[in-house]
Amino acid sequence: MEPARLFLGLLCASAALAASSLHQRAPPPEPLLLEEEPELGESPSGSLWPLPRSLRILPRQLQLAPARFELVHGPGSTAGPGCALLQDAFRRYYEYIFGYSKWQNQGQRQLPAGTELLQLQVIIGSKDSECDNYPNITSNEAYQLSVTEPVAVLKAEKVWGALRGLETFSQLVYEDDYGSFLINESEITDYPRFAHRGILLDTSRHFLPLKSILTNLDAMAFNKFNVLHWHIVDDHSFPYQSITFPELSGKGSYTYDHIYTPTDVRLVVDYARLRGIRVIPEFDSPGHTQSWGKGQKDLLTPCFNGEHQSGSYGPVNPILNTTYHFMTDLFKEISSVFPDAYIHLGGDEVDFTCWKSNPDVTEFMMQQGFGIDYAKLESYYIQKILDIVSSAHKGYIVWQEVFDKGVKLKPDTIVEVWIGSWYTVELSRVTGAGFTTILAAPWYLDYISYGQDWKKYYSVEPLNFIGSEKQKKLMIGGEACLWGEFVDATNLTPRLWPRASAVGERLWSSENVTNIKDAYNRLVKHRCRMLRRGIAAEPLFVGYCDHEARGL
Amino acid sequence: MEPARLFLGLLCASAALAASSLHQRAPPPEPLLLEEEPELGESPSGSLWPLPRSLRILPRQLQLAPARFELVHGPGSTAGPGCALLQDAFRRYYEYIFGYSKWQNQGQRQLPAGTELLQLQVIIGSKDSECDNYPNITSNEAYQLSVTEPVAVLKAEKVWGALRGLETFSQLVYEDDYGSFLINESEITDYPRFAHRGILLDTSRHFLPLKSILTNLDAMAFNKFNVLHWHIVDDHSFPYQSITFPELSGKGSYTYDHIYTPTDVRLVVDYARLRGIRVIPEFDSPGHTQSWGKGQKDLLTPCFNGEHQSGSYGPVNPILNTTYHFMTDLFKEISSVFPDAYIHLGGDEVDFTCWKSNPDVTEFMMQQGFGIDYAKLESYYIQKILDIVSSAHKGYIVWQEVFDKGVKLKPDTIVEVWIGSWYTVELSRVTGAGFTTILAAPWYLDYISYGQDWKKYYSVEPLNFIGSEKQKKLMIGGEACLWGEFVDATNLTPRLWPRASAVGERLWSSENVTNIKDAYNRLVKHRCRMLRRGIAAEPLFVGYCDHEARGL
Repeated sequence: MEPARLFLGLLCASAALAASSLHQRAPPPEPLLLEEEPELGESPSGSLWPLPRSLRILPRQLQLAPARFELVHGPGSTAGPGCALLQDAFRRYYEYIFGYSKWQNQGQRQLPAGTELLQLQVIIGSKDSECDNYPNITSNEAYQLSVTEPVAVLKAEKVWGALRGLETFSQLVYEDDYGSFLINESEITDYPRFAHRGILLDTSRHFLPLKSILTNLDAMAFNKFNVLHWHIVDDHSFPYQSITFPELSGKGSYTYDHIYTPTDVRLVVDYARLRGIRVIPEFDSPGHTQSWGKGQKDLLTPCFNGEHQSGSYGPVNPILNTTYHFMTDLFKEISSVFPDAYIHLGGDEVDFTCWKSNPDVTEFMMQQGFGIDYAKLESYYIQKILDIVSSAHKGYIVWQEVFDKGVKLKPDTIVEVWIGSWYTVELSRVTGAGFTTILAAPWYLDYISYGQDWKKYYSVEPLNFIGSEKQKKLMIGGEACLWGEFVDATNLTPRLWPRASAVGERLWSSENVTNIKDAYNRLVKHRCRMLRRGIAAEPLFVGYCDHEARGL
Repeated sequence: MEPARLFLGLLCASAALAASSLHQRAPPPEPLLLEEEPELGESPSGSLWPLPRSLRILPRQLQLAPARFELVHGPGSTAGPGCALLQDAFRRYYEYIFGYSKWQNQGQRQLPAGTELLQLQVIIGSKDSECDNYPNITSNEAYQLSVTEPVAVLKAEKVWGALRGLETFSQLVYEDDYGSFLINESEITDYPRFAHRGILLDTSRHFLPLKSILTNLDAMAFNKFNVLHWHIVDDHSFPYQSITFPELSGKGSYTYDHIYTPTDVRLVVDYARLRGIRVIPEFDSPGHTQSWGKGQKDLLTPCFNGEHQSGSYGPVNPILNTTYHFMTDLFKEISSVFPDAYIHLGGDEVDFTCWKSNPDVTEFMMQQGFGIDYAKLESYYIQKILDIVSSAHKGYIVWQEVFDKGVKLKPDTIVEVWIGSWYTVELSRVTGAGFTTILAAPWYLDYISYGQDWKKYYSVEPLNFIGSEKQKKLMIGGEACLWGEFVDATNLTPRLWPRASAVGERLWSSENVTNIKDAYNRLVKHRCRMLRRGIAAEPLFVGYCDHEARGL
């Protein structure tokens, strides 16, 4: 009675259920994918994920002895022991490579001459290694990795490329049946296809404990993601603890326990930086702000029921000067707390019902000459917010509606395309207007379904829209979004990984890396590696890992 | 850009994706449920789950002082300190009630006279408390609970009812804002609607570490489930370590690490017993046995390609005497290792292709007068297996195909209905033929979908089939099945709970307990309670728990 063979039966079952259900409208039948069990084989690229741009793996195997092998700064590197970012990465990757073996004391014996890999030398070429910087949209993540006896050399202009190369190096090492650590001689040249490779986490619908966020940052690094889009506040709760406006979280968070203090935020940002990951916070307005209103008087629009206030509130009140004073102070703080050059300003899904009910808003509309076109009022508001954020010397990302409604945007604005229908048309329009864009629409990972849906995410081709070469260049990446309606710390990790890994390879590897069978063979191993490194990534299909999750 | 508001857009997105996808057939569009955010309120029944059959909660509150409160054997009880099962349960429930408070040192002060609950007295009424027994299909799980100052009394005929009552008592206790533990005076009379309330776990497609199984047994007890249907072996792996045939797991398990030793099995059975849970193992044949063939020569049918063996194998070979000798010895062992009176024998989904290809099978068919009706051969095989298991003095459960094919069954056979289409018709047929039945079809929890699918499971009415009163009595329960194709220790718990809780209440509570809104209010609290007790149950919808999962 396995589900895979029985999807047809289940379709009928839903119909039967509808007939026998007395208490609610039956849901539509679920179209289950009939899953052929894939044949697991060996990829010529081993367990590498995402696949490097250029890769040559030679047959010659070298052995690594845990007690002797070193990750070191190579000759001529502009980064040395003073570069804490690399020092931390060396220790981390030593642990990832050797730390999980069951046979840690093996391989201490002297090896035959000429068969041992003694070192990985990391050489940063650029005068400014950027060791103490934060990564940004233009960060150079390219690297070259050459594994030959007796030392491997990892060359990169900047530390960001070194981080990506360390991950790749760690993925090249494998254990044989005797517990020896082996690596094949290899030559790799690698760099990302897209500059913006993000994961969206939502900490408003459900609070995510710090540990969940940090664990996810680890997993992101294993998959060469470089942006955490932190959808930190929304209607349901305001966990961001503001120094300027402490009442926002004081009254707007779920409880006193469900808060990110300034220390927490700092920790996330620093932990991310050490992994070459940017943290872009989203403070979405004027909609999605119910929780803001709890701690900030007069921020939201009072809704009216005829002539009287109804007691409920709508979007941010766009007609008061106090609103803009508040926003100026808040975004000034946010701009300093989050070092990234971009802030996500949201701007999606504004419901006009409340504005329409409010007589003061109506009067303001008349004064401004907006008539009854509330989209003009929305644009008026957003324009002011964009100006505020510009004054704070930040760039911004907005959801596509802001572009669609004709708000005047700075040329360096990034428009995030999320509406599922006809997103390729939207990509054409946005880039046709000369704006940079990132794609989220096909990668809403909170939508779950039975079976191997990673293939669906994997098969998206982001440049498959109509446009000139110049337009294609404006498409700079994408994001896998895990909205939080049904996700919290209990299920976040297995729901996100390895499904997001499919998006990770799509955004990093070459356009022609599309072989699903080869991807499956590599991803199965990559998933087991994530598990070994403490990420509770769920299985792709039947099978096992040598090291199963134990502590769950 | 929340998913809930955008399901229509997503439907269209799938179409757009199909057009742009080059590498695989696009999946059918996903019909997403438009989810209204439910209003969370207080149920008059607090956080009780499943709802007791009869319940009176009075306004008067009593306080419990952790340092003084005791769970004790009451006067006249036939169970005393010698009853390890109850002793263990007392300690467990003390911990569940008080162990998670952040303010453990509160409430030590003397309370005003007449406001404190000092004890829960547990009184077993029957001469045989069944303290040292294993639970079985006829076990009496009824109890009465009376909470009045200064002592609460829990009366049950047998320990099984006491276990259920302890769970209910623990669910009545709540903490106020000052960290005090309170309980309302209450009167409860309770007993299950159905005798068989099961969870199916599959340890063949993926191995489940022992800890996962034990954690699940805890969760089952919190939801008053009483059967673990352990689908222990199948095509993919044979983790059961047989004493008689050690090669079955020696060659048929994934690795030496992916095995349940006799000690492991004993531990599961005992852990379950202490929680009033039966363990029914499933050894499915003649199909679903590929892994068996690895360690047992000549057990499976060799398939032919024309005149030559193809090298692959089909179902169990039903024409050899050695097959039945092997099965006799194996089921003899199984019958002694698993104390329950029932074994699940499977019998589903037998593919005839290989049998048809084999000339020896063809000849046997002719000798037996089966012609070309391979269903007769299947029945011949299953009949012999049933006889073998009967000789080992065990009852059996079979999947519905065994009944459908007219195999002669002992009158006490339980037929499990799993095929989704028209399962109500099947229930009529099975019970019409006088057989006991359990229902799994609408509760395949491995089928996931976006949103609150617990409502779908909750709204099933198991007796909603055409049949006499006598037939209805033959429907003795059901099972929530979590097949393992896409489930292992990384995602088992959040995928199963609280979705299975919906099935739990359906099988325990009265037929008229169908109010979805009230269920939601209770289940949200019940889910947070499971979380507090170490079960990573996923959220039902937006919101929070006072104690979030931290260690994930």
